[in-house]
Amino acid sequence: MSFAERLRARTAPLESFLDEVMAPKLAASGALPLGSAMAYALKGGKRLRGFLVLEGAALHGAAQEQALWPAAAVEAMHAYSLVHDDLPCMDDDDLRRGQPTVHVKWDEATAVLVGDALQSLAFELASHEAAHPDPAVRIALVAGLARAAGAEGMVLGQAQDIAAESATSPLTLAEITALQANKTGALIVWSAEAGARLAGADPAPMAAYARALGLAFQIADDILDVAGDAAKAGKRVGKDAARGKATFVSLLGLEAARARAAELVDEAIAALDGYGAAADGLREAARFVIAREM
Amino acid sequence: MSFAERLRARTAPLESFLDEVMAPKLAASGALPLGSAMAYALKGGKRLRGFLVLEGAALHGAAQEQALWPAAAVEAMHAYSLVHDDLPCMDDDDLRRGQPTVHVKWDEATAVLVGDALQSLAFELASHEAAHPDPAVRIALVAGLARAAGAEGMVLGQAQDIAAESATSPLTLAEITALQANKTGALIVWSAEAGARLAGADPAPMAAYARALGLAFQIADDILDVAGDAAKAGKRVGKDAARGKATFVSLLGLEAARARAAELVDEAIAALDGYGAAADGLREAARFVIAREM
Repeated sequence: MSFAERLRARTAPLESFLDEVMAPKLAASGALPLGSAMAYALKGGKRLRGFLVLEGAALHGAAQEQALWPAAAVEAMHAYSLVHDDLPCMDDDDLRRGQPTVHVKWDEATAVLVGDALQSLAFELASHEAAHPDPAVRIALVAGLARAAGAEGMVLGQAQDIAAESATSPLTLAEITALQANKTGALIVWSAEAGARLAGADPAPMAAYARALGLAFQIADDILDVAGDAAKAGKRVGKDAARGKATFVSLLGLEAARARAAELVDEAIAALDGYGAAADGLREAARFVIAREM
Repeated sequence: MSFAERLRARTAPLESFLDEVMAPKLAASGALPLGSAMAYALKGGKRLRGFLVLEGAALHGAAQEQALWPAAAVEAMHAYSLVHDDLPCMDDDDLRRGQPTVHVKWDEATAVLVGDALQSLAFELASHEAAHPDPAVRIALVAGLARAAGAEGMVLGQAQDIAAESATSPLTLAEITALQANKTGALIVWSAEAGARLAGADPAPMAAYARALGLAFQIADDILDVAGDAAKAGKRVGKDAARGKATFVSLLGLEAARARAAELVDEAIAALDGYGAAADGLREAARFVIAREM
Protein backbone atom coordinates (compact mmCIF):
# COMPACT_ATOMS: atom_id res chain seq x y z
CA MET A 1 0.00 0.00 0.00
CA SER A 2 1.42 3.40 -0.98
CA PHE A 3 1.40 6.15 1.60
CA ALA A 4 -1.24 8.04 -0.41
CA GLU A 5 -3.49 4.97 -0.11
CA ARG A 6 -2.73 4.60 3.58
CA LEU A 7 -3.54 8.28 4.13
CA ARG A 8 -6.84 7.94 2.27
CA ALA A 9 -7.77 4.74 4.10
CA ARG A 10 -7.00 6.22 7.53
CA THR A 11 -8.85 9.48 6.87
CA ALA A 12 -11.85 8.06 4.95
CA PRO A 13 -13.94 7.94 8.18
CA LEU A 14 -12.97 11.57 8.78
CA GLU A 15 -14.57 12.67 5.51
CA SER A 16 -17.98 11.25 6.43
CA PHE A 17 -17.55 12.48 10.01
CA LEU A 18 -16.99 16.03 8.76
CA ASP A 19 -20.18 15.70 6.70
CA GLU A 20 -22.04 14.62 9.85
CA VAL A 21 -20.82 17.48 12.02
CA MET A 22 -21.59 19.96 9.25
CA ALA A 23 -25.20 18.77 8.86
CA PRO A 24 -26.67 20.93 11.68
CA LYS A 25 -24.67 23.95 10.49
CA LEU A 26 -26.03 23.51 6.95
CA ALA A 27 -29.55 23.18 8.33
CA ALA A 28 -29.19 26.31 10.51
CA SER A 29 -27.76 28.22 7.55
CA GLY A 30 -30.82 27.58 5.37
CA ALA A 31 -30.56 29.47 2.07
CA LEU A 32 -27.53 31.49 3.24
CA PRO A 33 -24.13 30.64 1.72
CA LEU A 34 -22.49 30.29 5.17
CA GLY A 35 -23.07 26.57 5.69
CA SER A 36 -22.31 25.39 2.17
CA ALA A 37 -19.24 27.64 1.95
CA MET A 38 -17.97 26.16 5.24
CA ALA A 39 -18.49 22.65 3.85
CA TYR A 40 -16.72 23.67 0.63
CA ALA A 41 -13.74 25.06 2.55
CA LEU A 42 -13.50 21.80 4.51
CA LYS A 43 -13.31 19.67 1.35
CA GLY A 44 -10.36 18.39 -0.58
CA GLY A 45 -7.45 18.75 1.81
CA LYS A 46 -4.73 16.13 2.14
CA ARG A 47 -5.88 15.64 5.76
CA LEU A 48 -2.30 15.41 6.99
CA ARG A 49 -3.29 16.93 10.35
CA GLY A 50 -6.32 14.67 10.70
CA PHE A 51 -4.14 11.71 9.74
CA LEU A 52 -1.66 12.58 12.50
CA VAL A 53 -4.48 12.63 15.06
CA LEU A 54 -5.99 9.33 13.88
CA GLU A 55 -2.67 7.53 13.37
CA GLY A 56 -1.38 8.82 16.71
CA ALA A 57 -4.56 7.60 18.38
CA ALA A 58 -4.25 4.14 16.81
CA LEU A 59 -0.60 3.99 17.87
CA HIS A 60 -1.50 4.71 21.50
CA GLY A 61 -4.64 2.55 21.57
CA ALA A 62 -7.18 5.39 21.71
CA ALA A 63 -10.52 4.66 20.05
CA GLN A 64 -11.09 6.01 16.55
CA GLU A 65 -14.60 7.21 17.46
CA GLN A 66 -12.98 9.48 20.05
CA ALA A 67 -10.08 10.56 17.85
CA LEU A 68 -12.39 11.67 15.03
CA TRP A 69 -13.39 14.68 17.17
CA PRO A 70 -9.92 16.25 17.52
CA ALA A 71 -9.11 15.14 13.95
CA ALA A 72 -12.13 17.05 12.66
CA ALA A 73 -11.30 19.96 14.98
CA VAL A 74 -7.82 20.43 13.58
CA GLU A 75 -9.04 20.12 9.99
CA ALA A 76 -11.64 22.84 10.71
CA MET A 77 -8.94 25.04 12.25
CA HIS A 78 -6.62 24.47 9.30
CA ALA A 79 -9.42 25.14 6.78
CA TYR A 80 -10.28 28.44 8.52
CA SER A 81 -6.64 29.55 8.34
CA LEU A 82 -6.50 28.82 4.59
CA VAL A 83 -9.73 30.72 3.87
CA HIS A 84 -8.46 33.80 5.72
CA ASP A 85 -4.89 33.52 4.35
CA ASP A 86 -6.30 33.49 0.80
CA LEU A 87 -8.21 36.79 1.28
CA PRO A 88 -7.26 39.70 -1.02
CA CYS A 89 -5.90 41.67 1.95
CA MET A 90 -3.70 38.71 2.94
CA ASP A 91 -2.04 36.42 0.36
CA ASP A 92 -4.67 37.18 -2.33
CA ASP A 93 -4.93 33.66 -3.76
CA ASP A 94 -7.66 32.61 -6.16
CA LEU A 95 -6.87 28.89 -6.24
CA ARG A 96 -6.77 26.44 -3.32
CA ARG A 97 -6.84 22.67 -3.38
CA GLY A 98 -7.37 23.01 -7.14
CA GLN A 99 -10.63 24.97 -6.70
CA PRO A 100 -11.55 28.68 -6.59
CA THR A 101 -10.97 30.12 -3.12
CA VAL A 102 -14.01 30.98 -0.97
CA HIS A 103 -13.86 34.73 -1.57
CA VAL A 104 -13.67 34.09 -5.34
CA LYS A 105 -16.52 31.57 -5.41
CA TRP A 106 -18.67 33.64 -3.04
CA ASP A 107 -17.38 36.99 -1.74
CA GLU A 108 -15.03 38.43 0.88
CA ALA A 109 -17.66 38.84 3.58
CA THR A 110 -18.61 35.18 3.25
CA ALA A 111 -14.94 34.19 3.39
CA VAL A 112 -14.38 36.16 6.61
CA LEU A 113 -17.47 34.62 8.22
CA VAL A 114 -16.65 31.09 7.00
CA GLY A 115 -13.21 31.33 8.59
CA ASP A 116 -14.65 32.72 11.81
CA ALA A 117 -17.27 29.97 12.04
CA LEU A 118 -14.75 27.24 11.22
CA GLN A 119 -12.57 28.40 14.10
CA SER A 120 -15.55 28.24 16.48
CA LEU A 121 -16.37 24.80 15.05
CA ALA A 122 -12.86 23.59 15.83
CA PHE A 123 -13.39 24.38 19.52
CA GLU A 124 -16.90 22.95 19.49
CA LEU A 125 -15.51 19.65 18.17
CA ALA A 126 -12.46 19.50 20.45
CA SER A 127 -14.63 20.16 23.52
CA HIS A 128 -17.35 17.64 22.60
CA GLU A 129 -18.04 15.06 25.29
CA ALA A 130 -17.81 12.22 22.76
CA ALA A 131 -14.11 13.07 22.29
CA HIS A 132 -13.29 11.64 25.73
CA PRO A 133 -15.27 10.76 28.88
CA ASP A 134 -12.81 12.64 31.10
CA PRO A 135 -13.36 16.42 30.88
CA ALA A 136 -9.77 16.97 32.04
CA VAL A 137 -8.53 15.35 28.82
CA ARG A 138 -10.88 17.45 26.68
CA ILE A 139 -9.99 20.72 28.39
CA ALA A 140 -6.28 20.00 27.90
CA LEU A 141 -6.93 19.48 24.19
CA VAL A 142 -8.94 22.72 23.98
CA ALA A 143 -6.43 24.82 25.91
CA GLY A 144 -3.58 23.49 23.76
CA LEU A 145 -5.55 24.13 20.57
CA ALA A 146 -6.27 27.73 21.62
CA ARG A 147 -2.60 28.40 22.32
CA ALA A 148 -1.49 26.71 19.07
CA ALA A 149 -3.99 28.73 17.01
CA GLY A 150 -3.67 32.20 18.51
CA ALA A 151 -1.37 35.17 18.98
CA GLU A 152 1.50 32.99 20.22
CA GLY A 153 0.97 30.34 17.52
CA MET A 154 -0.59 30.17 14.07
CA VAL A 155 -1.90 33.75 13.86
CA LEU A 156 1.44 35.11 15.07
CA GLY A 157 3.17 33.09 12.33
CA GLN A 158 0.86 34.50 9.69
CA ALA A 159 1.46 38.04 11.00
CA GLN A 160 5.21 37.40 10.85
CA ASP A 161 4.83 36.07 7.31
CA ILE A 162 2.92 39.15 6.14
CA ALA A 163 5.38 41.52 7.81
CA ALA A 164 8.25 39.71 6.05
CA GLU A 165 6.84 40.72 2.67
CA SER A 166 7.30 44.42 3.34
CA ALA A 167 10.47 44.14 5.43
CA THR A 168 13.49 46.02 4.14
CA SER A 169 15.84 43.08 4.78
CA PRO A 170 14.87 39.44 4.18
CA LEU A 171 14.35 37.12 7.16
CA THR A 172 17.26 35.10 8.49
CA LEU A 173 17.14 31.31 8.69
CA ALA A 174 16.47 31.51 12.43
CA GLU A 175 13.60 33.94 11.85
CA ILE A 176 11.96 31.90 9.11
CA THR A 177 12.32 28.75 11.21
CA ALA A 178 10.58 30.47 14.14
CA LEU A 179 7.91 31.85 11.81
CA GLN A 180 7.10 28.40 10.47
CA ALA A 181 7.13 26.80 13.91
CA ASN A 182 4.32 29.25 14.73
CA LYS A 183 2.45 29.32 11.42
CA THR A 184 2.24 25.59 10.70
CA GLY A 185 4.29 23.83 13.38
CA ALA A 186 2.09 24.52 16.40
CA LEU A 187 -1.02 22.95 14.88
CA ILE A 188 0.93 19.96 13.53
CA VAL A 189 2.42 19.33 16.97
CA TRP A 190 -1.06 19.56 18.55
CA SER A 191 -2.35 17.04 16.00
CA ALA A 192 0.42 14.55 16.62
CA GLU A 193 0.07 14.82 20.41
CA ALA A 194 -3.72 14.46 20.47
CA GLY A 195 -3.86 10.65 20.27
CA ALA A 196 -1.34 10.26 23.10
CA ARG A 197 -3.39 12.69 25.18
CA LEU A 198 -6.58 10.71 24.54
CA ALA A 199 -4.78 7.56 25.68
CA GLY A 200 -3.20 9.20 28.73
CA ALA A 201 0.30 8.55 27.33
CA ASP A 202 3.33 10.85 27.31
CA PRO A 203 2.98 13.07 24.22
CA ALA A 204 6.67 14.11 24.18
CA PRO A 205 7.92 11.66 21.48
CA MET A 206 5.03 12.62 19.22
CA ALA A 207 5.80 16.31 19.76
CA ALA A 208 9.44 15.79 18.82
CA TYR A 209 8.35 13.85 15.72
CA ALA A 210 5.89 16.59 14.74
CA ARG A 211 8.30 19.49 15.22
CA ALA A 212 10.74 17.92 12.76
CA LEU A 213 7.94 16.83 10.43
CA GLY A 214 6.35 20.30 10.38
CA LEU A 215 9.58 22.03 9.47
CA ALA A 216 10.37 19.42 6.79
CA PHE A 217 6.89 19.96 5.40
CA GLN A 218 7.43 23.70 5.15
CA ILE A 219 10.83 23.37 3.50
CA ALA A 220 9.23 20.96 1.02
CA ASP A 221 6.50 23.55 0.40
CA ASP A 222 9.12 26.17 -0.43
CA ILE A 223 10.80 23.70 -2.80
CA LEU A 224 7.43 23.02 -4.41
CA ASP A 225 6.97 26.77 -4.88
CA VAL A 226 10.08 27.01 -7.07
CA ALA A 227 10.31 23.50 -8.50
CA GLY A 228 6.70 22.30 -8.55
CA ASP A 229 3.78 22.92 -10.84
CA ALA A 230 0.36 24.34 -10.04
CA ALA A 231 -1.51 21.21 -11.10
CA LYS A 232 0.30 19.08 -8.51
CA ALA A 233 0.24 21.75 -5.81
CA GLY A 234 -3.41 22.66 -6.32
CA LYS A 235 -2.46 26.30 -5.84
CA ARG A 236 -0.39 28.98 -7.57
CA VAL A 237 3.38 28.38 -7.47
CA GLY A 238 6.33 30.70 -7.91
CA LYS A 239 4.61 33.42 -5.87
CA ASP A 240 7.20 33.65 -3.12
CA ALA A 241 10.08 33.97 -5.56
CA ALA A 242 8.16 36.57 -7.60
CA ARG A 243 7.65 38.63 -4.43
CA GLY A 244 11.29 38.36 -3.42
CA LYS A 245 10.30 36.71 -0.14
CA ALA A 246 12.93 34.86 1.84
CA THR A 247 12.23 31.12 1.84
CA PHE A 248 14.23 28.10 2.91
CA VAL A 249 15.22 27.76 -0.76
CA SER A 250 16.32 31.38 -1.19
CA LEU A 251 18.30 31.19 2.05
CA LEU A 252 19.84 27.72 1.66
CA GLY A 253 19.72 27.08 -2.08
CA LEU A 254 17.68 24.25 -3.62
CA GLU A 255 20.08 21.41 -2.91
CA ALA A 256 20.86 22.37 0.68
CA ALA A 257 17.13 22.87 1.31
CA ARG A 258 16.47 19.33 0.05
CA ALA A 259 19.26 18.00 2.25
CA ARG A 260 17.92 19.84 5.32
CA ALA A 261 14.41 18.50 4.69
CA ALA A 262 15.78 14.95 4.40
CA GLU A 263 17.72 15.42 7.64
CA LEU A 264 14.56 16.58 9.41
CA VAL A 265 12.68 13.55 8.13
CA ASP A 266 15.39 11.34 9.66
CA GLU A 267 15.00 13.25 12.92
CA ALA A 268 11.23 12.79 12.85
CA ILE A 269 11.61 9.07 12.24
CA ALA A 270 14.20 8.73 15.00
CA ALA A 271 11.78 10.32 17.47
CA LEU A 272 9.51 7.29 16.94
CA ASP A 273 12.16 4.72 17.87
CA GLY A 274 10.34 3.69 21.03
CA TYR A 275 7.20 2.59 19.19
CA GLY A 276 8.43 -0.22 16.94
CA ALA A 277 6.61 -1.28 13.78
CA ALA A 278 3.29 0.18 14.96
CA ALA A 279 4.59 3.63 14.05
CA ASP A 280 5.39 2.72 10.43
CA GLY A 281 2.46 4.80 9.18
CA LEU A 282 3.89 7.88 10.86
CA ARG A 283 7.35 7.08 9.48
CA GLU A 284 5.88 6.87 5.99
CA ALA A 285 4.11 10.18 6.56
CA ALA A 286 7.46 11.78 7.31
CA ARG A 287 8.98 10.40 4.13
CA PHE A 288 5.91 11.45 2.18
CA VAL A 289 6.15 15.14 3.03
CA ILE A 290 9.44 15.46 1.18
CA ALA A 291 8.62 12.91 -1.54
CA ARG A 292 5.71 15.06 -2.75
CA GLU A 293 7.90 17.01 -5.13
CA MET A 294 11.45 15.65 -5.09
CA MET B 1 -24.46 55.07 42.85
CA SER B 2 -25.59 55.41 39.23
CA PHE B 3 -25.58 52.30 37.08
CA ALA B 4 -22.70 53.69 35.02
CA GLU B 5 -20.68 53.94 38.26
CA ARG B 6 -21.72 50.44 39.33
CA LEU B 7 -20.74 49.07 35.92
CA ARG B 8 -17.33 50.77 36.12
CA ALA B 9 -16.75 49.60 39.69
CA ARG B 10 -17.67 45.99 38.90
CA THR B 11 -15.59 45.83 35.73
CA ALA B 12 -12.55 47.82 36.93
CA PRO B 13 -10.71 44.58 37.88
CA LEU B 14 -11.50 43.26 34.39
CA GLU B 15 -9.59 46.13 32.76
CA SER B 16 -6.37 45.33 34.58
CA PHE B 17 -6.99 41.60 34.12
CA LEU B 18 -7.22 42.08 30.34
CA ASP B 19 -3.93 43.98 30.46
CA GLU B 20 -2.37 41.03 32.31
CA VAL B 21 -3.58 38.35 29.89
CA MET B 22 -2.45 40.48 26.94
CA ALA B 23 1.09 40.89 28.29
CA PRO B 24 2.49 37.59 26.88
CA LYS B 25 0.75 38.23 23.54
CA LEU B 26 2.35 41.68 23.33
CA ALA B 27 5.73 40.19 24.20
CA ALA B 28 5.39 37.43 21.57
CA SER B 29 4.31 39.98 18.98
CA GLY B 30 7.48 42.06 19.36
CA ALA B 31 7.58 44.89 16.82
CA LEU B 32 4.58 43.49 14.87
CA PRO B 33 1.27 45.37 15.13
CA LEU B 34 -0.64 42.18 16.07
CA GLY B 35 -0.32 42.44 19.86
CA SER B 36 -0.88 46.16 20.21
CA ALA B 37 -3.79 46.07 17.73
CA MET B 38 -5.40 43.28 19.78
CA ALA B 39 -4.97 45.35 22.95
CA TYR B 40 -6.43 48.38 21.14
CA ALA B 41 -9.47 46.38 19.98
CA LEU B 42 -10.03 45.19 23.56
CA LYS B 43 -10.11 48.75 24.97
CA GLY B 44 -12.99 51.08 25.58
CA GLY B 45 -16.06 48.86 25.51
CA LYS B 46 -18.94 49.26 27.93
CA ARG B 47 -18.09 45.75 29.26
CA LEU B 48 -21.77 44.83 29.48
CA ARG B 49 -20.95 41.16 28.78
CA GLY B 50 -18.09 41.12 31.28
CA PHE B 51 -20.35 42.83 33.81
CA LEU B 52 -22.98 40.10 33.35
CA VAL B 53 -20.36 37.41 34.05
CA LEU B 54 -18.95 39.19 37.12
CA GLU B 55 -22.33 40.28 38.54
CA GLY B 56 -23.80 36.82 37.88
CA ALA B 57 -20.82 35.26 39.65
CA ALA B 58 -21.23 37.56 42.68
CA LEU B 59 -24.95 36.77 42.78
CA HIS B 60 -24.26 33.02 42.91
CA GLY B 61 -21.30 33.22 45.25
CA ALA B 62 -18.61 32.34 42.71
CA ALA B 63 -15.19 33.92 43.33
CA GLN B 64 -14.29 36.99 41.31
CA GLU B 65 -10.79 35.65 40.59
CA GLN B 66 -12.46 32.72 38.80
CA ALA B 67 -15.11 34.83 37.07
CA LEU B 68 -12.54 37.18 35.57
CA TRP B 69 -11.52 34.40 33.15
CA PRO B 70 -14.90 33.91 31.43
CA ALA B 71 -15.51 37.68 31.71
CA ALA B 72 -12.30 38.35 29.80
CA ALA B 73 -13.12 35.51 27.39
CA VAL B 74 -16.45 36.98 26.37
CA GLU B 75 -14.99 40.47 26.01
CA ALA B 76 -12.30 39.03 23.71
CA MET B 77 -14.96 37.21 21.69
CA HIS B 78 -17.09 40.35 21.45
CA ALA B 79 -14.09 42.49 20.47
CA TYR B 80 -13.15 40.04 17.68
CA SER B 81 -16.70 40.20 16.29
CA LEU B 82 -16.60 44.01 16.21
CA VAL B 83 -13.22 44.11 14.44
CA HIS B 84 -14.43 41.73 11.72
CA ASP B 85 -17.91 43.34 11.44
CA ASP B 86 -16.26 46.71 10.84
CA LEU B 87 -14.18 45.44 7.87
CA PRO B 88 -14.78 47.10 4.48
CA CYS B 89 -16.24 43.85 3.09
CA MET B 90 -18.67 43.67 6.03
CA ASP B 91 -20.28 46.79 7.57
CA ASP B 92 -17.41 49.07 6.47
CA ASP B 93 -17.26 51.22 9.61
CA ASP B 94 -14.42 53.62 10.32
CA LEU B 95 -15.43 54.55 13.88
CA ARG B 96 -15.88 52.23 16.88
CA ARG B 97 -16.04 53.11 20.56
CA GLY B 98 -15.20 56.66 19.46
CA GLN B 99 -11.90 55.60 17.88
CA PRO B 100 -10.76 54.63 14.36
CA THR B 101 -11.51 50.99 13.64
CA VAL B 102 -8.58 48.53 13.49
CA HIS B 103 -8.46 48.32 9.69
CA VAL B 104 -8.40 52.14 9.51
CA LYS B 105 -5.73 52.58 12.17
CA TRP B 106 -3.64 49.68 10.79
CA ASP B 107 -4.82 47.77 7.71
CA GLU B 108 -7.26 45.06 6.68
CA ALA B 109 -4.82 42.17 7.04
CA THR B 110 -4.07 43.23 10.61
CA ALA B 111 -7.80 43.52 11.34
CA VAL B 112 -8.47 40.00 10.05
CA LEU B 113 -5.59 38.58 12.12
CA VAL B 114 -6.53 40.58 15.24
CA GLY B 115 -10.06 39.19 15.10
CA ASP B 116 -8.80 35.65 14.53
CA ALA B 117 -6.36 35.86 17.44
CA LEU B 118 -8.97 37.40 19.75
CA GLN B 119 -11.28 34.47 19.06
CA SER B 120 -8.50 32.02 19.96
CA LEU B 121 -7.78 34.10 23.06
CA ALA B 122 -11.41 33.80 24.15
CA PHE B 123 -11.11 30.01 24.18
CA GLU B 124 -7.70 30.13 25.84
CA LEU B 125 -9.17 32.21 28.68
CA ALA B 126 -12.39 30.20 29.07
CA SER B 127 -10.43 26.95 29.25
CA HIS B 128 -7.79 28.23 31.71
CA GLU B 129 -7.46 26.14 34.84
CA ALA B 130 -7.68 29.22 37.06
CA ALA B 131 -11.29 29.70 35.88
CA HIS B 132 -12.44 26.70 37.93
CA PRO B 133 -10.75 23.71 39.60
CA ASP B 134 -13.26 21.28 38.04
CA PRO B 135 -12.46 20.65 34.34
CA ALA B 136 -16.09 19.62 33.78
CA VAL B 137 -17.17 23.19 34.59
CA ARG B 138 -14.56 24.68 32.28
CA ILE B 139 -15.36 22.36 29.38
CA ALA B 140 -19.08 23.22 29.69
CA LEU B 141 -18.18 26.91 29.47
CA VAL B 142 -15.97 26.30 26.43
CA ALA B 143 -18.49 24.11 24.59
CA GLY B 144 -21.24 26.66 25.23
CA LEU B 145 -19.01 29.51 24.08
CA ALA B 146 -18.16 27.67 20.85
CA ARG B 147 -21.83 27.06 20.07
CA ALA B 148 -22.79 30.65 20.95
CA ALA B 149 -20.04 32.07 18.73
CA GLY B 150 -20.26 29.90 15.64
CA ALA B 151 -22.39 28.93 12.66
CA GLU B 152 -25.48 28.36 14.84
CA GLY B 153 -24.91 31.52 16.89
CA MET B 154 -23.11 34.82 16.46
CA VAL B 155 -21.57 34.20 13.03
CA LEU B 156 -24.91 32.91 11.71
CA GLY B 157 -26.56 36.12 12.96
CA GLN B 158 -23.96 38.25 11.20
CA ALA B 159 -24.45 36.25 7.98
CA GLN B 160 -28.22 36.76 8.29
CA ASP B 161 -27.66 40.47 8.87
CA ILE B 162 -25.47 40.83 5.77
CA ALA B 163 -27.91 38.84 3.63
CA ALA B 164 -30.74 41.12 4.80
CA GLU B 165 -29.02 44.11 3.21
CA SER B 166 -29.30 42.70 -0.30
CA ALA B 167 -32.63 40.90 0.19
CA THR B 168 -35.44 41.96 -2.15
CA SER B 169 -37.99 42.08 0.67
CA PRO B 170 -37.20 43.40 4.17
CA LEU B 171 -37.03 40.97 7.10
CA THR B 172 -40.16 40.26 9.14
CA LEU B 173 -40.30 40.89 12.88
CA ALA B 174 -39.88 37.14 13.52
CA GLU B 175 -36.83 37.01 11.26
CA ILE B 176 -35.13 40.04 12.78
CA THR B 177 -35.82 38.69 16.27
CA ALA B 178 -34.21 35.36 15.35
CA LEU B 179 -31.29 37.18 13.71
CA GLN B 180 -30.60 39.20 16.86
CA ALA B 181 -30.97 36.17 19.13
CA ASN B 182 -28.09 34.69 17.13
CA LYS B 183 -25.99 37.78 16.50
CA THR B 184 -25.97 39.29 19.99
CA GLY B 185 -28.30 37.17 22.13
CA ALA B 186 -26.29 33.95 22.25
CA LEU B 187 -23.17 35.58 23.70
CA ILE B 188 -25.19 37.66 26.18
CA VAL B 189 -26.96 34.51 27.42
CA TRP B 190 -23.61 32.73 27.77
CA SER B 191 -22.28 35.68 29.79
CA ALA B 192 -25.24 35.78 32.14
CA GLU B 193 -25.15 32.01 32.71
CA ALA B 194 -21.40 31.79 33.36
CA GLY B 195 -21.49 32.82 37.05
CA ALA B 196 -24.22 30.29 37.82
CA ARG B 197 -22.20 27.61 36.05
CA LEU B 198 -19.08 28.46 38.08
CA ALA B 199 -21.15 28.14 41.26
CA GLY B 200 -22.85 24.91 40.18
CA ALA B 201 -26.26 26.63 40.27
CA ASP B 202 -29.16 26.32 37.80
CA PRO B 203 -28.43 28.83 35.00
CA ALA B 204 -32.05 28.88 33.69
CA PRO B 205 -33.24 32.09 35.42
CA MET B 206 -30.13 33.93 34.22
CA ALA B 207 -30.72 32.64 30.68
CA ALA B 208 -34.32 33.91 30.72
CA TYR B 209 -33.10 37.27 32.04
CA ALA B 210 -30.43 37.49 29.34
CA ARG B 211 -32.68 36.54 26.43
CA ALA B 212 -35.04 39.42 27.27
CA LEU B 213 -32.14 41.75 28.05
CA GLY B 214 -30.35 40.95 24.78
CA LEU B 215 -33.39 41.66 22.67
CA ALA B 216 -34.15 44.89 24.58
CA PHE B 217 -30.54 45.92 24.03
CA GLN B 218 -30.84 45.38 20.28
CA ILE B 219 -34.12 47.27 20.01
CA ALA B 220 -32.50 50.11 21.96
CA ASP B 221 -29.59 50.00 19.51
CA ASP B 222 -31.98 50.40 16.59
CA ILE B 223 -33.63 53.34 18.36
CA LEU B 224 -30.20 54.86 18.94
CA ASP B 225 -29.46 54.48 15.23
CA VAL B 226 -32.39 56.75 14.30
CA ALA B 227 -32.73 58.93 17.40
CA GLY B 228 -29.20 59.01 18.82
CA ASP B 229 -26.07 60.92 17.98
CA ALA B 230 -22.65 59.63 17.02
CA ALA B 231 -20.88 61.24 19.95
CA LYS B 232 -22.98 59.30 22.48
CA ALA B 233 -22.96 56.07 20.46
CA GLY B 234 -19.23 56.14 19.72
CA LYS B 235 -20.00 54.94 16.20
CA ARG B 236 -21.80 56.19 13.09
CA VAL B 237 -25.58 56.45 13.41
CA GLY B 238 -28.36 56.55 10.81
CA LYS B 239 -26.60 53.89 8.72
CA ASP B 240 -29.37 51.30 8.89
CA ALA B 241 -32.06 53.79 7.83
CA ALA B 242 -29.84 55.09 5.02
CA ARG B 243 -29.42 51.54 3.72
CA GLY B 244 -33.16 50.80 3.90
CA LYS B 245 -32.50 47.91 6.28
CA ALA B 246 -35.39 46.54 8.31
CA THR B 247 -34.91 47.31 11.99
CA PHE B 248 -37.18 47.03 15.01
CA VAL B 249 -37.89 50.74 14.52
CA SER B 250 -38.75 50.45 10.81
CA LEU B 251 -40.99 47.44 11.52
CA LEU B 252 -42.69 48.66 14.69
CA GLY B 253 -42.35 52.45 14.57
CA LEU B 254 -40.36 54.43 17.13
CA GLU B 255 -42.98 54.51 19.89
CA ALA B 256 -43.96 50.84 19.64
CA ALA B 257 -40.27 49.89 19.56
CA ARG B 258 -39.73 51.85 22.79
CA ALA B 259 -42.75 50.17 24.36
CA ARG B 260 -41.52 46.71 23.31
CA ALA B 261 -38.06 47.39 24.73
CA ALA B 262 -39.61 48.51 28.03
CA GLU B 263 -41.75 45.37 28.11
CA LEU B 264 -38.67 43.20 27.60
CA VAL B 265 -36.89 45.00 30.43
CA ASP B 266 -39.83 44.14 32.69
CA GLU B 267 -39.57 40.52 31.55
CA ALA B 268 -35.84 40.47 32.27
CA ILE B 269 -36.38 41.89 35.74
CA ALA B 270 -39.19 39.42 36.45
CA ALA B 271 -36.87 36.53 35.60
CA LEU B 272 -34.74 37.57 38.61
CA ASP B 273 -37.62 37.38 41.12
CA GLY B 274 -36.11 34.40 42.93
CA TYR B 275 -32.91 36.26 43.83
CA GLY B 276 -34.12 39.14 46.03
CA ALA B 277 -32.14 42.33 46.51
CA ALA B 278 -28.84 40.66 45.59
CA ALA B 279 -29.87 40.89 41.93
CA ASP B 280 -30.45 44.65 41.99
CA GLY B 281 -27.31 45.25 39.94
CA LEU B 282 -28.66 43.04 37.17
CA ARG B 283 -32.06 44.77 37.39
CA GLU B 284 -30.35 48.11 36.98
CA ALA B 285 -28.44 46.74 34.01
CA ALA B 286 -31.73 45.86 32.36
CA ARG B 287 -33.11 49.37 32.93
CA PHE B 288 -29.83 50.85 31.72
CA VAL B 289 -29.90 49.24 28.29
CA ILE B 290 -33.02 51.19 27.33
CA ALA B 291 -32.17 54.32 29.30
CA ARG B 292 -29.02 54.82 27.20
CA GLU B 293 -30.85 56.86 24.60
CA MET B 294 -34.47 57.39 25.62
